[in-house]
This record gives sequence, C-alpha cells and structure tokens, in this order.
Amino acid sequence: MEIKVIKDVLEANNYIACKVKEEIAKRQAMMINIIGSPGAGKTSFIVKTIQYLDIKSVVIEGDVTSDIDSRKVAEFGIPVVQVNTGGGCHLNANIIDLALQELSSSAENAIIFVENVGNLICPASFDIGEDFKVAVSSLPEGHDKPYKYPAVFEKARATVLNKIDLKRHVEFDRDSFYEGVKTLNPDGYIFEVSSLLGDGIKEWIQWLKQQFMRKLNH
Amino acid sequence: MEIKVIKDVLEANNYIACKVKEEIAKRQAMMINIIGSPGAGKTSFIVKTIQYLDIKSVVIEGDVTSDIDSRKVAEFGIPVVQVNTGGGCHLNANIIDLALQELSSSAENAIIFVENVGNLICPASFDIGEDFKVAVSSLPEGHDKPYKYPAVFEKARATVLNKIDLKRHVEFDRDSFYEGVKTLNPDGYIFEVSSLLGDGIKEWIQWLKQQFMRKLNH
Repeated sequence: MEIKVIKDVLEANNYIACKVKEEIAKRQAMMINIIGSPGAGKTSFIVKTIQYLDIKSVVIEGDVTSDIDSRKVAEFGIPVVQVNTGGGCHLNANIIDLALQELSSSAENAIIFVENVGNLICPASFDIGEDFKVAVSSLPEGHDKPYKYPAVFEKARATVLNKIDLKRHVEFDRDSFYEGVKTLNPDGYIFEVSSLLGDGIKEWIQWLKQQFMRKLNH
Repeated sequence: MEIKVIKDVLEANNYIACKVKEEIAKRQAMMINIIGSPGAGKTSFIVKTIQYLDIKSVVIEGDVTSDIDSRKVAEFGIPVVQVNTGGGCHLNANIIDLALQELSSSAENAIIFVENVGNLICPASFDIGEDFKVAVSSLPEGHDKPYKYPAVFEKARATVLNKIDLKRHVEFDRDSFYEGVKTLNPDGYIFEVSSLLGDGIKEWIQWLKQQFMRKLNH
C-alpha cells in the first residue's frame, strides 16, 4: 500500500519534470540540481561559481524553512528565488515549475543553479527537470560518504569535493573517496574545490561551460 | 490522499514505538535516538562517550546501506547491531524492535545508543521508542543549522556541538547557534565536544548518567 503511493508520487513528479525540461529547453537554459548534506557548503560553492562564470546565472534556493541562503545569494546581486518545502526533505518538479514562472525572463539563456534541500538521501530519487545532478561533499564529512549514501554519487554527472582548504586539519582518505565515487559512477567527474579560497573553481567552471555549450549546440 | 497515508504510517509507527518503550522499561534500559547530518561525527561521538562511561552500553547503527559504522564500533569491543533502511531516510520503530530482539540480554540494565540515518530532517518525525533525542551538529556545518532544520533541534533534549577542535579553522558564530537552539528549545541542554580529543565529553557524560539514574529511580 505504502509502496504504491510512493510510486504514484514519483510518477506525478516525473510528469511535471518533463514539462520543466521542455520549458528550460525553450528558454535556451541549462538547469543543475545541486545535492549535498547540510553544511557541505552548497551555497558558497554556487556563489563562488557564479562570481567566476561569464554566463548569465540564476539561483533557486531550496530549504525546509528560512530564507538564509537566498539572502546570502542576493547580497552578490544574483537573481534568486527561495522555495521552502515546509518540512519536506527534497525538492520536487512542481515547486521548480513555480520557481521558473517567478524567475520569468531572467532564466533565459542562462544557467539555473538549483540548491536542493540539505540531504544526501531523498533528493537523489526526485527528478526536478534538471539537465544533470551535481553532488557536493565536503572534507570534514569524511571519505566514506559515497559508500554510505551511494544513490546521490551514482546519479551525479559531477561530484564536487568541497572545503579542501581544511585538508591539514581533518582526517580524509582521498583515495578511498575517489574509489567510492568511481566504483558507483565510472564516467562521473570529480572536482576538488575550496569555495572559500577559490581553489579548483576554474577547472570546474571550464567543464561547466562545456556542458552548457554542448547543450545549446544540440 | 498522500497526507492520509503519511498519517497512517506515523500512526502505525507510534503503535510499535509504544511497544518498544515498554520493552526497554522492562529491561531497565534507556534508549537515546542520536540524529545529525552525514559526517557530523555521530559514530565517533558514541564511541568516545562509551569509552568514558561506566554504564553498560550497546549500539544500534542505522544507515541506508553499508556496515562501515558498526564495524568501527565493534573494533572497540562494544556490542552493536547494524540496521539498514535500504534507501529509507530515517529509522522507524519496527526496525528498532527487531534490533532489540537481536541484542537480547546485552540490552538489559544498559544505555542503548541508536545512531539514526545521517539526515537532519526526516528522523525528527519518527518516534522509535527512545527515551529522548540528541541532536548532533558539527562546527564545519555552520551556525545556521538550527534555523534551517528546526525540527530536530526543537525536539532534542540535548544538542551536541561536535568537532570544536576545528574552531580556529572554520567560521562559526557560536552566539547565533546558541540563540537558534535556545529559541526553539528553551529547556534543551547544549554540550560542546570534540569527539576526536575528548574535550567536553565528561560534562556530557555527567548529564547522561543523571538521565539514566533518574529513569531507573522512577
């Protein structure tokens, strides 16, 4: 009984996700679904990326409650919409559909960064109409995250290892992390960055621009 | 329709949680439901606590998949049962009921530490039959967690701020964190610890022993 309902919810979600994908294609935009634990540094990563990026960008901030992250983004003059799930542990396509209407023409010819609710589990199961997912994990969380929360790392086109500025202060087995990600996702890309200092952001940006150009040329 | 089913799931869970509570009382035990983000340091915190504690202790390790944490606990000679949700984002009372049967007499006259799935959202909504919840948050996650994920901090009898050994290396507004927790939960206790170095563990242990004695004397 329970399983049947979950299936219906997923089906309804996927239907709206298709609608969102069409809308994004029509707008000549690309949407990235950014997933990570609470405190992985998703917001700082998004802001640092947009600061280095010479492509128009907008942000959809997902949270259970509060507008802390969207205020942080707005401080940098970046167009942003906050969406709150009111207790829900992931974003769904419906809320993104509404956010796109709100963003209107600012989300045309642009990269749309969606920061999902801080959670390594549930967001992996819900397509929100994105072009691809990016997993954000941070050094202080430990190298075992791909083994313990495989779904996100398996589905992400790129994994970002954030907060590498802390490498001398926390224990982290880099080889084990890479092996975990690569076993789940042999074709996935891994970028090591410090959103605080900007280390590694340029390599990530270069790859991101390629993804955008490739989409527009198809 | 969806809301109705969620209510049924919660009701069914609460019925089993009552059964678990009775079973724990019969065993003269106390059960703690430990909730925090992936990588907050829940396992290290549990191990360090048990190392300092002169009360019999057992652990139930909850994870989506893998037995990484239970192997870590077992290395210290602590009785442990691993429970995997297979994708589920929180523990429920039913799985705890089964784990207690597995632990059998080792969970008598003891403190039972349950490490919930790494997730700051969903575990807060499910009573697993615990005596109380403990929220674990860590310095590198940032001081805004109580504002963004209020339910866990609101419901926890104690909040543990972990990884304070990193205080010179990460930005963290301690006053803002305290205000966040205290606003949600004026009677809640806050303990600052380093599970790595042992700082603050003794104050936490003292409080924990009081909770245990108080329960047994009632």
